[in-house]
Amino acid sequence: MINLSCDYCEGCHEKILQRMVETNMIQAPGYSLDDYCASATDLIRKECRDENVAVHYLVGGTQTNLVMIAAALRPHQGVIGATTCHLNVHETGAIEGTGHKVITVSSPNEDGKIAAAQVEELIELHRSDEGFVHCVQPKMVYVSQPTELGTLYTKAELESLSETCRRLGLYLYVDGARLGYGLACEQNDVTIADLAHLADAFYIGGTKIGAMFGEALVIVNPALKEDFRYIIKQRGALLAKGRLLGIQFETLFQDGLYVKIAKEAVDLAQKLQAVIEELGFSFQVKSPTNQIFPIFPDALLEKLSEKYIYNYQYRVDDTHSCIRLCTSWGTRPEFVDEFCEDLRRLAARG
Amino acid sequence: MINLSCDYCEGCHEKILQRMVETNMIQAPGYSLDDYCASATDLIRKECRDENVAVHYLVGGTQTNLVMIAAALRPHQGVIGATTCHLNVHETGAIEGTGHKVITVSSPNEDGKIAAAQVEELIELHRSDEGFVHCVQPKMVYVSQPTELGTLYTKAELESLSETCRRLGLYLYVDGARLGYGLACEQNDVTIADLAHLADAFYIGGTKIGAMFGEALVIVNPALKEDFRYIIKQRGALLAKGRLLGIQFETLFQDGLYVKIAKEAVDLAQKLQAVIEELGFSFQVKSPTNQIFPIFPDALLEKLSEKYIYNYQYRVDDTHSCIRLCTSWGTRPEFVDEFCEDLRRLAARG
Amino acid sequence: MINLSCDYCEGCHEKILQRMVETNMIQAPGYSLDDYCASATDLIRKECRDENVAVHYLVGGTQTNLVMIAAALRPHQGVIGATTCHLNVHETGAIEGTGHKVITVSSPNEDGKIAAAQVEELIELHRSDEGFVHCVQPKMVYVSQPTELGTLYTKAELESLSETCRRLGLYLYVDGARLGYGLACEQNDVTIADLAHLADAFYIGGTKIGAMFGEALVIVNPALKEDFRYIIKQRGALLAKGRLLGIQFETLFQDGLYVKIAKEAVDLAQKLQAVIEELGFSFQVKSPTNQIFPIFPDALLEKLSEKYIYNYQYRVDDTHSCIRLCTSWGTRPEFVDEFCEDLRRLAARG
Amino acid sequence: MINLSCDYCEGCHEKILQRMVETNMIQAPGYSLDDYCASATDLIRKECRDENVAVHYLVGGTQTNLVMIAAALRPHQGVIGATTCHLNVHETGAIEGTGHKVITVSSPNEDGKIAAAQVEELIELHRSDEGFVHCVQPKMVYVSQPTELGTLYTKAELESLSETCRRLGLYLYVDGARLGYGLACEQNDVTIADLAHLADAFYIGGTKIGAMFGEALVIVNPALKEDFRYIIKQRGALLAKGRLLGIQFETLFQDGLYVKIAKEAVDLAQKLQAVIEELGFSFQVKSPTNQIFPIFPDALLEKLSEKYIYNYQYRVDDTHSCIRLCTSWGTRPEFVDEFCEDLRRLAARG
Repeated sequence: MINLSCDYCEGCHEKILQRMVETNMIQAPGYSLDDYCASATDLIRKECRDENVAVHYLVGGTQTNLVMIAAALRPHQGVIGATTCHLNVHETGAIEGTGHKVITVSSPNEDGKIAAAQVEELIELHRSDEGFVHCVQPKMVYVSQPTELGTLYTKAELESLSETCRRLGLYLYVDGARLGYGLACEQNDVTIADLAHLADAFYIGGTKIGAMFGEALVIVNPALKEDFRYIIKQRGALLAKGRLLGIQFETLFQDGLYVKIAKEAVDLAQKLQAVIEELGFSFQVKSPTNQIFPIFPDALLEKLSEKYIYNYQYRVDDTHSCIRLCTSWGTRPEFVDEFCEDLRRLAARG
Repeated sequence: MINLSCDYCEGCHEKILQRMVETNMIQAPGYSLDDYCASATDLIRKECRDENVAVHYLVGGTQTNLVMIAAALRPHQGVIGATTCHLNVHETGAIEGTGHKVITVSSPNEDGKIAAAQVEELIELHRSDEGFVHCVQPKMVYVSQPTELGTLYTKAELESLSETCRRLGLYLYVDGARLGYGLACEQNDVTIADLAHLADAFYIGGTKIGAMFGEALVIVNPALKEDFRYIIKQRGALLAKGRLLGIQFETLFQDGLYVKIAKEAVDLAQKLQAVIEELGFSFQVKSPTNQIFPIFPDALLEKLSEKYIYNYQYRVDDTHSCIRLCTSWGTRPEFVDEFCEDLRRLAARG
Repeated sequence: MINLSCDYCEGCHEKILQRMVETNMIQAPGYSLDDYCASATDLIRKECRDENVAVHYLVGGTQTNLVMIAAALRPHQGVIGATTCHLNVHETGAIEGTGHKVITVSSPNEDGKIAAAQVEELIELHRSDEGFVHCVQPKMVYVSQPTELGTLYTKAELESLSETCRRLGLYLYVDGARLGYGLACEQNDVTIADLAHLADAFYIGGTKIGAMFGEALVIVNPALKEDFRYIIKQRGALLAKGRLLGIQFETLFQDGLYVKIAKEAVDLAQKLQAVIEELGFSFQVKSPTNQIFPIFPDALLEKLSEKYIYNYQYRVDDTHSCIRLCTSWGTRPEFVDEFCEDLRRLAARG
Repeated sequence: MINLSCDYCEGCHEKILQRMVETNMIQAPGYSLDDYCASATDLIRKECRDENVAVHYLVGGTQTNLVMIAAALRPHQGVIGATTCHLNVHETGAIEGTGHKVITVSSPNEDGKIAAAQVEELIELHRSDEGFVHCVQPKMVYVSQPTELGTLYTKAELESLSETCRRLGLYLYVDGARLGYGLACEQNDVTIADLAHLADAFYIGGTKIGAMFGEALVIVNPALKEDFRYIIKQRGALLAKGRLLGIQFETLFQDGLYVKIAKEAVDLAQKLQAVIEELGFSFQVKSPTNQIFPIFPDALLEKLSEKYIYNYQYRVDDTHSCIRLCTSWGTRPEFVDEFCEDLRRLAARG
């Protein structure tokens, strides 16, 4: 079976594995107080063009989100996100588990993105209500770049969100679980330095882009930095051998490896998307990154599933469904080619 | 100013006050272990036609909801409610504060009610997803009777919800903050005994219907009874002088006082609604209970607000808004008459 | 049976009941936004000699503690208290329920009090540890005045705690569930104004001193005031008819009623303690307030329990136990006389 | 510098690294649904001599503890542990962060162990109190094998704890962060199969014994198995590439590698302990495992710290301190030899 269902089917990039082998028996202090983490942080600060950002290394995305939000919000505060956002649908209530409401807004273009105007309206509504203390106080905006639907915020959109949040006293937090796949897109005009300028905090995803595991959380706003390591520990998220995280991010941010390997995945996904479109199929949304969302006849899907593993999204109508296909830094190009060939053949018969 | 904004503007029914005076200096054990509570529980069990229900007395509605839900759910479980439900909009995230997600569904008829089919669909969707452990597990259905929009579930609708919940392993919990105003309606066909038969737990609201404060939580499902008083205490909800709650519910459930005083309020609200309709105004929804939701021109509202306090609901269009008017067991009939007269006069000028 | 087990066996002081009757049908806005609360706050601010303190009205003591602590602490922070303190032993883990550890220190004199030096030592230990992020960060000191053992902090002791807390960046929070019984003692040299000067927050207990229910939480430190009403609501602690709390505290703080009725209770308890001592019995601790802790032979206790309800504390040895006897604003003097007579008689037989 | 401060200074055992290299580019499903985890589980079930235990793979110890406890306890319940236990002192309040109190008892022999009689006494005290609902309900007993002081429970002690817990309706949970170092001791008479027989749940530590990271949580009691993966996910503890955990535990439990490498570490620690004792130094406690706790003069420690990293424990008197020295699967024997030589030399001068 060929697995195109997600971007965490393989282990890690060979350069990372090699560094792990090289450094394996060197003694290092625990809990990310080692030199590898320090060096990774230097590299990430350089990308941010900001020497003052705090960088923390965590193991996974849900963990990073819940630690960040638990650290930032007071009990009565909530976080605004798109209805489709990871926080809201795929974290088993991890955020509510820390006591906070996820306040959802519908993506105006059904592409997983939210607009500054929506945030503004929501805050105005909250503040105009005399009974506002009876409602959760919105305090943070959560966006994913790229979104869960593979789409990208433009720099102008993020600037608008950032300006709105600062004016209204909200934090802007960007989930970059797949950030590399965004950075690697041709259409993308948002750099890591832009995020460090516009967001209060964001994370650079490693798990889905070349690392065995690991996310680098960058905290820009000094108000969010205080006592952060306590919170990491309290949530069971302080890795004993933090060196492993340092080694991985040090490797990913040397010589542009992070974006380089992401680009290969994006190119493969775009190739897939182009072929599918060419064959006349439609999409939930057109995505410029490594996840694509084609709509196929169920009969075709049945055939495909004999050989390919994909992610079922939702039923479109009685005879069609939407699926997600994912490429990753580790996807072999011949898998994509094979899929395209099979699809052409099946579609021709169809 | 005449206050028609809510049903908790006055103190309590005179019979309750009188009983408080009579019993004031009698010594009683604390924490609802007194004879007044025991007697109130007897009366409520009679209404339930079930000697085995557990009855607990709490101070307020949000408190009752959060204690019940914290006691019933495991950390990864959530509660299904209408988007407009009290849990979701007016409890400052109290449920999320206990760690649980409120899973919202839109009321199909925009009347604050949800349907058994919606619950079924949601559960099917959850269970069919192979990645279901990444999503909150729905475990309880929360409905209000009457709803936050003053509407009522029919017995058939509750039977359907109950049957669905039992079949799917969900709890059905009914918020009866205004239960008396429902029981007092002509259209109503749901008794307290029906609730004790159909729900796993429900509460009988006192605060809004004659009591100074207090809600009587009835737990029917044995699985939800265990150690309940610990949870009450842990949430700071175990009233030291629990006798006060016992005295109030004992009084309300003697000689049908609860429904009798609710009926007076409903009659006044229905009179108001009839006059407003007769004058040609429309409503967000037609309500058979003590809360009504007329839509008025803003200019008219400005005039009304010189003399009346009402509850602003939402902007309908550039020149109209929806408000809520509430009557209660304590509303003086002449206030309603005066409002009707003023409205006729203002509408005539229009 | 005569109940001397606690100070919440009766309803409320007659003046409060009378005010409730007088104001019962007057309409007032909900949630403590009424004139009664405003007036009570004026009176309390006068006692504090500080116009800037925030005053919030809550229903009970555990509730007040958990709301205050949930509002003040970040997730990784804990509250320091005596091993015997209410937070630690009698709140069913309410503080842990909000996510915070109660860090206990043993009372050096076994009288329920803790010393500034203990706080200092604990903080030094925490900060000197390189691995401090692996430990809960102490951030608040909790003391009760009077303590759970009826003893009192002197002004000098509180000044020392206050100075230590401010120097070390901790909050000092004083639980005054029985504050009136402390204020009414001859030995006492701590006023409400002193508390407003020395503590970051404290509460004035009503439930145990003349009120039906209710505690007035005074927040002095501006950092703790922000958004406080949201937190009250979120914890289910915002009483709908907040007027009831305003009426009670307004009455208690008019013409010195609060301390006057507390003094009567303290005098009765001291009379009891003197007689018990005179008869040769010993005490867990000598208390100057309304709770006393005599040690009696079990045989004697068995006799006493035929007529009196007391609070069992702990087994002292094979044939003796310690109990608590409590008087309150509502204790009838003849009950105390009767107890003294019975005890003399039983002891004579002994 | 030679690091003897802890047992997580190195990467992982070479066989694990080799397996990671071999399997790196093989596609596998995420979230521990892969074949490596299945195979590891088979091996662990064999060790348990129980085909029905559930095995879950987590990343770290604090995480494992908080997930297990959050899954097992209802809100009002607490976990009993020794005052010195990891839960109580070194998890930054992670357990309280899930809402539960850690109820501490002092180790009777100051060796980090607690006795069945203590549990029994605590439960009797709780249940005899009429006001028990005002206190946290003890529901779980937490012990570490080996303890945080390197000592071991005997099989008889664990049987007694197990029998007591079952009779009283408590769960027995064993933290095996260093289990291998216990299994490898000559004195040890407790096998993994014994734990599977006596405990309701326990975990087999990987992080400190040969793995890069990872703990294998074994759940024996069916009541604790339900919906466990939801809780893992909700706490941010479900590793995307769960294969990494499977590969590590599969390797550790093939051909007895786990105990074999632990034995090397224990032998080194025991050699260290023997030399230190021979030189006339005393210990906080004599430990049979890989952690030892010598007491040294401060002047000597100053010298040692020029070359060795150790863990400072506490001040013994004005001129002596207790430290912890740790060996691990990865400690080079020559490090220990060097330490012994240096110590002999320094002690001779001393």
